[in-house]
Amino acid sequence: MAPRIPLAPPPAAQPATDADARAEALLARMTLEEKVGQMAQITLDVVGRGKSRFASDEPFALDEAKLRDAVVRYKVGSILNAANNRARTPQVWEGIVGRIQQLARKETRLKIPVLYGIDAVHGETYTVGATMFPQQIAQAATRNRALVRRAAEITAYETRASAIPWAFSPVLDLGSDPRSPRHWETYGEDPYLGAELGVQVVKGYQGERNDVSQPVRVAASVKHFLAYQVPSSGKDRTNALVPDESLYEYHLPAFKAAIDAGAHTIMINSGLINGVPVHANYEILTRLLKERLGFKGLVVTDWGDIDNLYKRDRLVPNVKEAIALAINSGIDMGMLAYQYEEFCDNLVALVKEGRVPQARVDDAVRRILRVKFALGLFETPVTRVKDYPKFGSAEHERAAYETAAEAITLLKNQGGLLPLAKSSRVLVTGPNAHSMRTLNGAWTYSWQGEKVEEFAGRYHTILEAVQREIGPANVRYVPGVSYNMKPEGKYYEESADQLEQAVAAARDVDAVLLCVGENSYAEKPGDLNDLTLSPLQLELARRLASTGKPLVLVLNEGRPRIISGLEPLVPAIVQTYLPGNHGGEALADILFGDVNPSGKLPYTYPRYPNALVTYIHKYSEEQKRGQGAYHYEADYNPQWEFGHGLSYTTFAYAGLQLDKSSLAREETLTVTVQVTNTGRREGKEAVHLYTSDLVAAQVAPDVRRLRRFDKVSLQPGETKTLRFTLPVAELAYAGPKGEKILEAGDFEVRVGDQVKRFTLVDSPTAAN
Amino acid sequence: MAPRIPLAPPPAAQPATDADARAEALLARMTLEEKVGQMAQITLDVVGRGKSRFASDEPFALDEAKLRDAVVRYKVGSILNAANNRARTPQVWEGIVGRIQQLARKETRLKIPVLYGIDAVHGETYTVGATMFPQQIAQAATRNRALVRRAAEITAYETRASAIPWAFSPVLDLGSDPRSPRHWETYGEDPYLGAELGVQVVKGYQGERNDVSQPVRVAASVKHFLAYQVPSSGKDRTNALVPDESLYEYHLPAFKAAIDAGAHTIMINSGLINGVPVHANYEILTRLLKERLGFKGLVVTDWGDIDNLYKRDRLVPNVKEAIALAINSGIDMGMLAYQYEEFCDNLVALVKEGRVPQARVDDAVRRILRVKFALGLFETPVTRVKDYPKFGSAEHERAAYETAAEAITLLKNQGGLLPLAKSSRVLVTGPNAHSMRTLNGAWTYSWQGEKVEEFAGRYHTILEAVQREIGPANVRYVPGVSYNMKPEGKYYEESADQLEQAVAAARDVDAVLLCVGENSYAEKPGDLNDLTLSPLQLELARRLASTGKPLVLVLNEGRPRIISGLEPLVPAIVQTYLPGNHGGEALADILFGDVNPSGKLPYTYPRYPNALVTYIHKYSEEQKRGQGAYHYEADYNPQWEFGHGLSYTTFAYAGLQLDKSSLAREETLTVTVQVTNTGRREGKEAVHLYTSDLVAAQVAPDVRRLRRFDKVSLQPGETKTLRFTLPVAELAYAGPKGEKILEAGDFEVRVGDQVKRFTLVDSPTAAN
Repeated sequence: MAPRIPLAPPPAAQPATDADARAEALLARMTLEEKVGQMAQITLDVVGRGKSRFASDEPFALDEAKLRDAVVRYKVGSILNAANNRARTPQVWEGIVGRIQQLARKETRLKIPVLYGIDAVHGETYTVGATMFPQQIAQAATRNRALVRRAAEITAYETRASAIPWAFSPVLDLGSDPRSPRHWETYGEDPYLGAELGVQVVKGYQGERNDVSQPVRVAASVKHFLAYQVPSSGKDRTNALVPDESLYEYHLPAFKAAIDAGAHTIMINSGLINGVPVHANYEILTRLLKERLGFKGLVVTDWGDIDNLYKRDRLVPNVKEAIALAINSGIDMGMLAYQYEEFCDNLVALVKEGRVPQARVDDAVRRILRVKFALGLFETPVTRVKDYPKFGSAEHERAAYETAAEAITLLKNQGGLLPLAKSSRVLVTGPNAHSMRTLNGAWTYSWQGEKVEEFAGRYHTILEAVQREIGPANVRYVPGVSYNMKPEGKYYEESADQLEQAVAAARDVDAVLLCVGENSYAEKPGDLNDLTLSPLQLELARRLASTGKPLVLVLNEGRPRIISGLEPLVPAIVQTYLPGNHGGEALADILFGDVNPSGKLPYTYPRYPNALVTYIHKYSEEQKRGQGAYHYEADYNPQWEFGHGLSYTTFAYAGLQLDKSSLAREETLTVTVQVTNTGRREGKEAVHLYTSDLVAAQVAPDVRRLRRFDKVSLQPGETKTLRFTLPVAELAYAGPKGEKILEAGDFEVRVGDQVKRFTLVDSPTAAN
Repeated sequence: MAPRIPLAPPPAAQPATDADARAEALLARMTLEEKVGQMAQITLDVVGRGKSRFASDEPFALDEAKLRDAVVRYKVGSILNAANNRARTPQVWEGIVGRIQQLARKETRLKIPVLYGIDAVHGETYTVGATMFPQQIAQAATRNRALVRRAAEITAYETRASAIPWAFSPVLDLGSDPRSPRHWETYGEDPYLGAELGVQVVKGYQGERNDVSQPVRVAASVKHFLAYQVPSSGKDRTNALVPDESLYEYHLPAFKAAIDAGAHTIMINSGLINGVPVHANYEILTRLLKERLGFKGLVVTDWGDIDNLYKRDRLVPNVKEAIALAINSGIDMGMLAYQYEEFCDNLVALVKEGRVPQARVDDAVRRILRVKFALGLFETPVTRVKDYPKFGSAEHERAAYETAAEAITLLKNQGGLLPLAKSSRVLVTGPNAHSMRTLNGAWTYSWQGEKVEEFAGRYHTILEAVQREIGPANVRYVPGVSYNMKPEGKYYEESADQLEQAVAAARDVDAVLLCVGENSYAEKPGDLNDLTLSPLQLELARRLASTGKPLVLVLNEGRPRIISGLEPLVPAIVQTYLPGNHGGEALADILFGDVNPSGKLPYTYPRYPNALVTYIHKYSEEQKRGQGAYHYEADYNPQWEFGHGLSYTTFAYAGLQLDKSSLAREETLTVTVQVTNTGRREGKEAVHLYTSDLVAAQVAPDVRRLRRFDKVSLQPGETKTLRFTLPVAELAYAGPKGEKILEAGDFEVRVGDQVKRFTLVDSPTAAN
């Protein structure tokens, strides 16, 4: 399918509304208590009927007394989340948000609307009937900016259809550590890919002109600023070691691009960098984010992260000190989520004691009010579901399907086993074969995804999609292994489930579709101890392989679980990532040839659990044997490299041309290359342009870096010429103090198997 | 056995000899070419007879023409290493070094002796008949400073007996990453433990008064400055991410202690820190090492590391630039190892061109000459083996045995299975059961240890030692699995070797001694992809366990290979590390009760390959469940913690006392505690004193830190009172810029299960 929308023009400036002036005027009228209330964000359960503020009764209803205490008495400015961690219909959302806004608008002195925020992560997570797209890691595999933008536009529309104007998305963390339980929430391991797709989401959410008062737009909250997903332990919310040059070179670009594109809000890294919790880091929150990057939006904590400064990290002895530290470091709004009284009371006291400057509070509240004005909440505090006829529509669902179809990545296809004939008789097996939960992953109708089956009944699991594709008579299903699907189960719990029967069933079919991977998880509950695929799933695979029947390994996983012990036994391997509600159909269309796969890995698929080197690495990681004794040699051994992905057709590259062989710093290189479909069916090819800085004086150069990519569709025999323009200034790298360094010397440009060199010179380019 | 030597008095100052004045006078007489030659170090093969400079003919002989070209024409100042990577007798060494010195003293204008250096790592690696101690990681497990010092003294003696005055040892890298192929060369993961033992080695090598002209002393070369063993990939000689606070807090202390103790030379980290090769890092080599730490000694590269700046790391385009960069960064001597002509010619040219200051060369040569004068090489350029009657003596060998006996660590002893009765019939099996190579590890008679069997025939493998202990009639031996012992094999290659027979043999014995682990390796060839014990060894273990016979798992490995899948099946587990030539005997004495084990793990033994959190970690790594939704919880799950180690007796702690409950910064805390042997046999207990900083404002505090340790021997029923003094200033931590921070507040002191608190106050302590 062709992209539905054109690629984005250059980034918009910061929003140009009258929000600034109105915020300033309102701020001038506010009491200290009113200001501090705006800085507090609580979770919906706090104001729901129920025995405690940690859970609500079902069916959910607002508790008027609690709501009044929070919103009227304490002037709480923001509410987030779904009650009882459960999706609601748009109608219920309208009722909840409508009542909250009514109270805020009618019973508070200044009638400031509440800013409601939600983890709309791959679609509106917490709305029943919303369109669930592939998760970000899968969207990255499409290499298709237009599809990513469309997904964001639809998510914005459906979030507003749920009366919510603020999405805690996109994740722009560099996903360079596959151990991370949130790896699938990222765009993978490349900073440029992350920046390009992040900008699409910001524009999809906020609109090309960044007019978020339009009722189909939401404010983005890019997260988690910054370097959140690289703790040295691989465990969520722990300490990362990140020197400045890494911070600037790898972790910052996507955030900078999103901020330049006008992102209204930003959420902060819950972990520590170099031993310092980021929520306590003035250098990062104020100096870097607000001053150096010029971010004018709202800085919100992640869940409970002010408390974490004393309860978890022991940087301060009590909550009051934690509040002072976080706010003085640059936090504008605390996602408290429960104890608003202690936050508000302490912050008021801190200001009165002179421990938090009034100016700091004013800065925070100004930022919060600007977002509320920009979103048009003073005019339209609640949007109405009736105004959103396309909510969950076939058109939206089709976009989710199309994204999944371009995401799914063919990793191996020995002997052209795929596509399978539709007349094939197949066994569908494995713990991921018949689960909407595993197709979606977490942040789907609930935090950990454990409620997916309850809400996604109208979509098709892999099994169901295959049955629809080739007829139920041709499909056997035996689970072989099943996950513990109980809500209280751990994601990694699983057990044999008719394993022997699965092996026996394999003997009677033409091919086996073995669907393995992971059950759904998010955040710390998804921490992992061994990246290798589970022993039981490996055993099932080995037993099935031993039958001699052609085995198609379908991976459905949030991160690349190691399968090197299994890979040689399997002729075909397809990575689905977490493809969303339409992932089953998209997979079936690929397996049986209706769709030609075009996904490319957005990460390095590792071969071993202790060999997690990404494609961005130094030459020392792939050092060749030297002379004499001590002939050191590196072993760079990924299972599949970043960018790997096969097609049912073949592509050839030719004629790489650089318009200049020698350029000055301020010049732009134009690169052209021909790509030809040399096979026998139509196909799409994601074209990657890499550069290598052959010598770099301040920091050893990376072996190669992605600088441009595009996706083209080619008929059999068709050739297209791609043209990339690359300002040489983009090849600068970050030095030890984060400064940008661009040195004269030779560079290599690589597209496919084509390589050319050019020279960056200090003097102006001679004509050539 | 009681320690043979008293604990060391406070550190000596830098050496106070007349070396400085003599070096200065000589320097004044030198030409540029003579100076540059001093800065060059070549490997012995370069001056050996043979077809190329990369290998020599056997038997080895010096090539007079080559030697003259290097030493006379190019004035090369230092030679290292063994030819053809093979140990030689002391007599051969005397001949080689003697002839080199003769040439240098007779045929060079200034008669400057050559400085010969060698990798004497756990004894004199390259001398036939030298005493081979346990490797450093095992020495750390003794927690016995006296044993470590004695090993260093003997190594110094035997190195000088081999006519060599310079040992490339000790390794003071923090061993906090068990993936590292040089983990076993470290003292483990604690900075204080490393510092304490490093000082013992410097004093053992250089003497209490640092008079290295004494012919039983050698110059130490502490290495590898700094943070060498923590590359983020886990692969040798790659890029490490190390922020300043980590560098100062964890990686620097052991080096600082060794420098303060007078270490004469230092070798540099071959890898990169934060993208910058350390050999090109002026901040580290000059500002930190030479200026801030005041190091006056010689800074030598590691093997080929000037070349690596252009060949590997691409920081500069050619060797000339690499030389300029390294020397200007602060390198004094290049371990070239082969191409001295290009080094000398280029460096002379660089000085003449003004690209390397004459003063920089003078500084380097001054440092080199000082070491040569300090070592007495001008008076005694070669020591004679006849003057070293204790070389390889029974006394020396006994010290190696004693060190092994205190190193071996009893990790598990369910139901008191150990010690075994000497009347037991046992099966000895596993790839490590009958190998001197695996007991020693690498840096034993050769680089990778592949020649050990050729030279260590008079020592006893585990099998042989057990046979001697209980009589050969009671011992069956079936390998089960064997390593590929061919010199060209990879360390991880292994194959089944009578595996079924091993399982069958288990049925006929009282107990099975299963000896598993790793074959020998060093440096990059020892890189690892999966920390889990090999599948084949795990299979052998599971098969043996299934026989129901009591299984004693003997670990013989350079790093803690994961055994969590196996541990529940095995009632007794003993870690031997790499215990050296007497490790087999020491193990047999422990297994059958002649020796009561007292070793303690110098590292955290991990349970899973992707859960490598060390004992030094932040509170976030062991976070407990919080309230409400998003109840994050950490899973800190080591197999065994740092400091774990069982005894055949039991110990109880009581009466922990702090002499003050409140102290000022300049005060010293005195801690006393009673330790009682509550079991029925004599035993030794390593006592650890930890502190916790309960709140720290600049950097989140570590959960606990080792501050003191001591080892006591107790008769059954005996109680001893241990007394530790701890200046509060030692509790300061390194801030983001490396500054020392000591904040008022509460601290916890922990010894065994005893815990007390004290308060650091800003005002002077009140009497209490």
